[in-house]
Parts: sequence; C-alpha cells; structure tokens
Amino acid sequence: MKISDKVFKSGVYGKMKLATVGIVRSPLKEPSLVAESGDLEWRAEVVKVGRSRDVTSEIVISDVFTGILEGLEEFSHILVLYWAHRVTPEGRKLVKAHPMGRKDLPLVGVFSTCSPARPNPILATVVRLLERKGNTLTVEGLDAIDGSPIVDIKPYNPGYYASHDIKIAGWMERIFKDIARGLSQSPDSIVKQ
Amino acid sequence: MKISDKVFKSGVYGKMKLATVGIVRSPLKEPSLVAESGDLEWRAEVVKVGRSRDVTSEIVISDVFTGILEGLEEFSHILVLYWAHRVTPEGRKLVKAHPMGRKDLPLVGVFSTCSPARPNPILATVVRLLERKGNTLTVEGLDAIDGSPIVDIKPYNPGYYASHDIKIAGWMERIFKDIARGLSQSPDSIVKQ
Repeated sequence: MKISDKVFKSGVYGKMKLATVGIVRSPLKEPSLVAESGDLEWRAEVVKVGRSRDVTSEIVISDVFTGILEGLEEFSHILVLYWAHRVTPEGRKLVKAHPMGRKDLPLVGVFSTCSPARPNPILATVVRLLERKGNTLTVEGLDAIDGSPIVDIKPYNPGYYASHDIKIAGWMERIFKDIARGLSQSPDSIVKQ
Repeated sequence: MKISDKVFKSGVYGKMKLATVGIVRSPLKEPSLVAESGDLEWRAEVVKVGRSRDVTSEIVISDVFTGILEGLEEFSHILVLYWAHRVTPEGRKLVKAHPMGRKDLPLVGVFSTCSPARPNPILATVVRLLERKGNTLTVEGLDAIDGSPIVDIKPYNPGYYASHDIKIAGWMERIFKDIARGLSQSPDSIVKQ
C-alpha cells in the first residue's frame, strides 16, 4: 500500500535538507530487506538475521566536520542515524507492509515496523564504539550497508531510554523467537544461521 | 567553534530531502537550549530540566500518510525522530560546544552531546505511547516544542538497545547527578525544580 504520487509532487518533500556528515565502510554490501513490489521482501541469500550484530564497520566523518567527534571516545556506545540510500523513491511511498516481508505476520503501518523503506529512510542503530582515530570511528553492530551516508551521531545514555513496563507487538516477539530458534525468517522459508 | 560558510555553499547540504510526516502539539513553546553565540546557551527561565519527562503531547500525522500508524498501539513506547526547527542555519554550523551550555564542563564535539544545534538537527526521543486515535498519537515525555516537524516514528524494542558494559562520559554523569540534586543547570546558576 502506497502514498499517491500527488503527495510527492505537492511539495511535502524538500523543506528539510540533510548534510552527508560521513560515510559507512562495511563488509555488508547489499540490503537484506527491500521494497520493490509494494511490500517488503526479505533477501535471505544476501544476509542472515543477526549477522549485522557481529559486524565491524568504520564510520568516516568528512574533513569539514573535523572536531565534531571530540570526546565521543568517552562513551562505550553511540546512536548512529544513517540514510538508507538504496531505498527507492517508490520505497518511500510505502505506507503498510508485512514485517520482514513475512506474509504470515499482519500487514501493519510502516511506522510500526523497522522497515528501511519509509517516508524518511533514516535508520537508527545503537552500536558499540570500539575506537576513535581522528575522524574515523570503528564500531560493532552497525546494520548499515557499505556507502550509507551518516546523518547524525549521538552519545548513547541508557538513562534516557525506557527500561520498564515495556510492551511490544506480538508479531515482533514472534520474529525474535524465530531468530532465537535459528530461523532467519518465517518457518516456511527456513534458512539456518 | 563553527564550520566555515564555504561548506554550506559547496553543496554538502541538499542531497537528502525530508518530508514533514506530522507535527507536534505540545505545551512546551520555547526551546530551552539555543545556539546563538557560537556555543550552547541554557535558558533556565524558559524550561526546567526534567519537565519534558512529564509532559503530555500530541503527534498529528498528515492525512496523506493515513494508515502508517496502524498497529503502533501494540507498543508501549516509540522512538520519535523530529526536526529541531528553531535551530538556525548558524546553529547547524556548530562543531564544538559546552554540554548544556555549562562552561564548567569540557568543550566537546557536538556529536558527543545532545545539543539540538547540530549539522542535521534531528532529535531522537523514546516516549511512552498513551493512545492512538486515527492519525493522532498522545505521548508522554516528548521534549519537542510545539510545531516541531515529525521526521519518523519507530517501535521501541529494548532488545535492540545495549543494556550492559555501558560507559558514559564523566561530564554527562555530572549533569545527571546535578539534576538528581534538584539543580537544573550548573551550581552557579541554581534553579530549583
């Protein structure tokens, strides 16, 4: 289900412009979840769920922002906002999707999912900061693919995040359980980790 | 310390354009932390630290995105990305700042801080979702001021966030302790909660 083309022509886009403050260097080369058919599609052959948690990547900040990382090495974890640059203009029109492209899960609004295809394809991931050397950060657990533009970096302080009385949707719990059982996707398309 | 004007003319901005997917309706009318003098400045008379945690706000999603929130009510908490629209073009050039505008704390890179003034002024806050009615969310704890454009909304799942072996900078611990002691800023500008 998608937003009409009219919206894209009516000027709802374009008022807020982002700078590319840096670029991701990662062994992950292809997106695993794509939106090309009006829904999400999981490309199991490309990457397996859980893999990104162990990945070591580099974040290289542009020279024009030199100094902006200073002091970040005092934090063990950071929140990285990056642009999902492989999401197409069509992908940005997605309004509803099956989580992870799983047709056995309910069709829900894109804002209820972690879909990379969304009106503003900015993804947010908390990663471990292994090292800072000048303008380069080495991080663990970043799910961004190689070449993703960095939008923002923030220190991660768990004190700012909710930690109790938390409820998540049943379908998301199910995804988590399936991953724990070693299934990267739905039971009818089993891919062992 | 700021980025030169040259960068802003060289086209580093403008390649990634955001849609305004919604607007915040909040009793918070003015920003408490501003960047107008090449550093951050805390406006203690405007808002007291901690106040935003108790604030109830509304997020009204544009009609053109109807359906995009469906299923979000199954989550108790959400991550809200919003645009700090009162940050000036000058504020976006800030590279280093004193956290919270406190001159008694070290001057650090903007990415080490929660400064609203940053190259891409997108702020990320986890809030409690009290209710969804159609395109309107009622949330608790959103620090966005009235009229802030919504950039993105994601479900909050603590399983995706780091929970152990976490270290934060000493100056941030100090800010937390001062807030716990009932100081909204540095000891030399005491404002009781």
